[in-house]
Amino acid sequence: MNIIILSGGEGRHIWPLSNEARSKQFLRLLPDGESGASESMIQRVVRQIRQSGIDAPITIATNEYQQDSIVAHLGKDVDIVTEPSRRDTFPAVCLACEFLSKVKDIPDEEVVVVMPCDQFTELSYFDVVKRMAELAHNENVNLVVMGIKPAFSSSKFGYIVPEYDCGEETDFYRVIEFREKPSGNKAKNLIKKGAFWNGGVFAFKLGFIRHLAEKYVSGQDFKDIKKRYDEFPAISFDYEVAENTSRILMVPFSGLWKDLGTWESLLEEVDRESIGTVMTGNNRNTHVLNELQIPVLCVGTNNLVVAASFDGILIADKSQTEKIKEYSERFTTRPMFEERRWGTYHVIDHTSFDDGYETLTKRLTLRPGCSISYQRHKFRDETWTFIDGEGLIIIDGEKKTVQRGDTVKISRGRMHALMAVTPLTFIEVQAGSNLVESDIERFPWDWEERMQ
Amino acid sequence: MNIIILSGGEGRHIWPLSNEARSKQFLRLLPDGESGASESMIQRVVRQIRQSGIDAPITIATNEYQQDSIVAHLGKDVDIVTEPSRRDTFPAVCLACEFLSKVKDIPDEEVVVVMPCDQFTELSYFDVVKRMAELAHNENVNLVVMGIKPAFSSSKFGYIVPEYDCGEETDFYRVIEFREKPSGNKAKNLIKKGAFWNGGVFAFKLGFIRHLAEKYVSGQDFKDIKKRYDEFPAISFDYEVAENTSRILMVPFSGLWKDLGTWESLLEEVDRESIGTVMTGNNRNTHVLNELQIPVLCVGTNNLVVAASFDGILIADKSQTEKIKEYSERFTTRPMFEERRWGTYHVIDHTSFDDGYETLTKRLTLRPGCSISYQRHKFRDETWTFIDGEGLIIIDGEKKTVQRGDTVKISRGRMHALMAVTPLTFIEVQAGSNLVESDIERFPWDWEERMQ
Repeated sequence: MNIIILSGGEGRHIWPLSNEARSKQFLRLLPDGESGASESMIQRVVRQIRQSGIDAPITIATNEYQQDSIVAHLGKDVDIVTEPSRRDTFPAVCLACEFLSKVKDIPDEEVVVVMPCDQFTELSYFDVVKRMAELAHNENVNLVVMGIKPAFSSSKFGYIVPEYDCGEETDFYRVIEFREKPSGNKAKNLIKKGAFWNGGVFAFKLGFIRHLAEKYVSGQDFKDIKKRYDEFPAISFDYEVAENTSRILMVPFSGLWKDLGTWESLLEEVDRESIGTVMTGNNRNTHVLNELQIPVLCVGTNNLVVAASFDGILIADKSQTEKIKEYSERFTTRPMFEERRWGTYHVIDHTSFDDGYETLTKRLTLRPGCSISYQRHKFRDETWTFIDGEGLIIIDGEKKTVQRGDTVKISRGRMHALMAVTPLTFIEVQAGSNLVESDIERFPWDWEERMQ
Repeated sequence: MNIIILSGGEGRHIWPLSNEARSKQFLRLLPDGESGASESMIQRVVRQIRQSGIDAPITIATNEYQQDSIVAHLGKDVDIVTEPSRRDTFPAVCLACEFLSKVKDIPDEEVVVVMPCDQFTELSYFDVVKRMAELAHNENVNLVVMGIKPAFSSSKFGYIVPEYDCGEETDFYRVIEFREKPSGNKAKNLIKKGAFWNGGVFAFKLGFIRHLAEKYVSGQDFKDIKKRYDEFPAISFDYEVAENTSRILMVPFSGLWKDLGTWESLLEEVDRESIGTVMTGNNRNTHVLNELQIPVLCVGTNNLVVAASFDGILIADKSQTEKIKEYSERFTTRPMFEERRWGTYHVIDHTSFDDGYETLTKRLTLRPGCSISYQRHKFRDETWTFIDGEGLIIIDGEKKTVQRGDTVKISRGRMHALMAVTPLTFIEVQAGSNLVESDIERFPWDWEERMQ
């Protein structure tokens, strides 16, 4: 078996803790159940896969923005496939399947399970996954889907209508049809008829999807296919595959299953009332999550979520958290915190002057052995003041060591790279007339070879 | 007439917008009634004094922390007397009176009016002030006090019991006694008897207080007396003077009078629901005041005050704002925003490492012509990156111009001073093992003479 975990999403629902570069699946808010520490949704699902005894290789299908976060959360135990542009789940699954076939040499007969990363479930969910993989392997079917036993009538989910016959008792059913997000009454009727929610977990043989993918894009190698990614239709896996396929089985799952899509549902699983520098008094049913150094004081409130990050400060009644994405999208400020492959950074100040000149001040921390690529900027100067650790810096080919107390000025046009020897923290002041992320030209620099 | 305005207070009641260096009287939150702009309490009281036709010289009795803020808010139209240490209102009034006598050569017969800076009143209040000064001048009395007509029974105020006789009708009364903060029933009885609140406005002849002051401290000149400031008892003007003096008159005032001592009472006078980068939706009776660049989103709340500054983020039910001072004092973080004589600064980052090394990153703006004194630090290095404007810098006696784009490193032990030619903004990274405010040694530097 191979597992593909879909990690996408713009992540604005859990604003301000999530942003374009940090979707909700990367928030370390969930209790890990053992050590008392906190883990993210994506760490939870991978931990649960392993805990349930599945040792299948895992591939994360994601976008470029999330790549660094995934490495930071999961390390090197997973493969990562990034879509060159944001489309939808069908193209994302196709690309990941082509990766399995062409890069990992997985044969077409092997079973693949696709699952989302942001559902909150218990271990028995993964027993159903195992059973789905068995059925996909042994039965003469195209697709096996997980049916989530509905806890209530909802128009937010798709439904699966299974065929109940009076024959022998099995732990799976043939699927009659899929119904996309039905309105209130229709949802109630579907549940009466015994329909299940479609949780987006699918098992199939690799060749099945590869043949569907080839209808749109085919190529010699994975690189070719990735280049032509935009030729895939921007359509969901449900619409393109599930609803147009015959011979589908459903395995029901009736354990704990939650979509942590809003603040309200997420906070039900957060076991601490406050995280960060927070003081509270006399509040009821209020969660306060503070990622800033600035202290938060919350007194006498009821049913609120308070969340503070460099991206924003949210104060909302929990019952109204579904609207937060919409509101927050009207703020036009840039993401202020990012988790990158090499470490993290916070924007601590952003000042604009009337004449278009801007400054961006960041605090950055590089992990030991990690490096920022050899690069130069056309429009901005940078001043780096190192405040902790040791590293190696290259400026226009010249290398030297840097450490706490050093200040380095990198004028526009100068090539520079940095590698951390120990955890390396510095304050960077960017200044210029065109402070855009794309003002960067990268060049190869092989640290191991060239630092001798 | 001479006016002494008392500007003290630790300012934690309106946390996080007020702190040790910025008491509530410096918050620019009140509508100025004309231009639609906002003004601070201290700006309001001085504006109202002038608007009511009083052209008396004004002296602000304050502490060293507030000196720079007073200049920033009131310019050079007022004199400032700073107490060398924090004591109470009696010593503060004594010091200001000695200043009037010994520095401004005011004769002992002239009338002085003392008033607080943080009461929210209307213009007719100042007509009462004028009447008080007349009485202090013309009648054979020691003290004239303002009686505020009580709006409700309160144990928060002191009361003044006037003598009602059946003689001719006057606009003033003899005072029988003062009663400090009576308990609930006693307050009710006092009001039934026709007592007034003591609003802390007093008129007297300068010599009266000077003779009282000399009981404790006397000296040749003002400097001598200031040096011996700690020899004054730390006692309020009410206790030391009002309660121990015979021949006191009271002039009643029955117009608008409010103590803006808590968030709740202050917000009643703030005419905008939000200030700063704020988005709100579906809130009732909620004020959102944001001094940060980080955007605030507030949705679905009721009766809240939300206030964000570099010092802290407050979310509180308005009915519970009296407790905020107490809570906020438990935070041990340093003030993150200060208004100084030369301009302003924000702390944008404060990072501490396990080995005691710390960094403090600030964004500072100097007003043109203003300067930071010639100084050196023992334990910290500073890196200044100039991001706007032009200035002159002195390092170890050597002067040069600095402007946008320049970075200057000032290692520990080096003497340095800075003057702004145009408004000058820079990012400062302080780093060292002992980042205390007191790590500073100041030296004289006469810019006008030495910059030739």
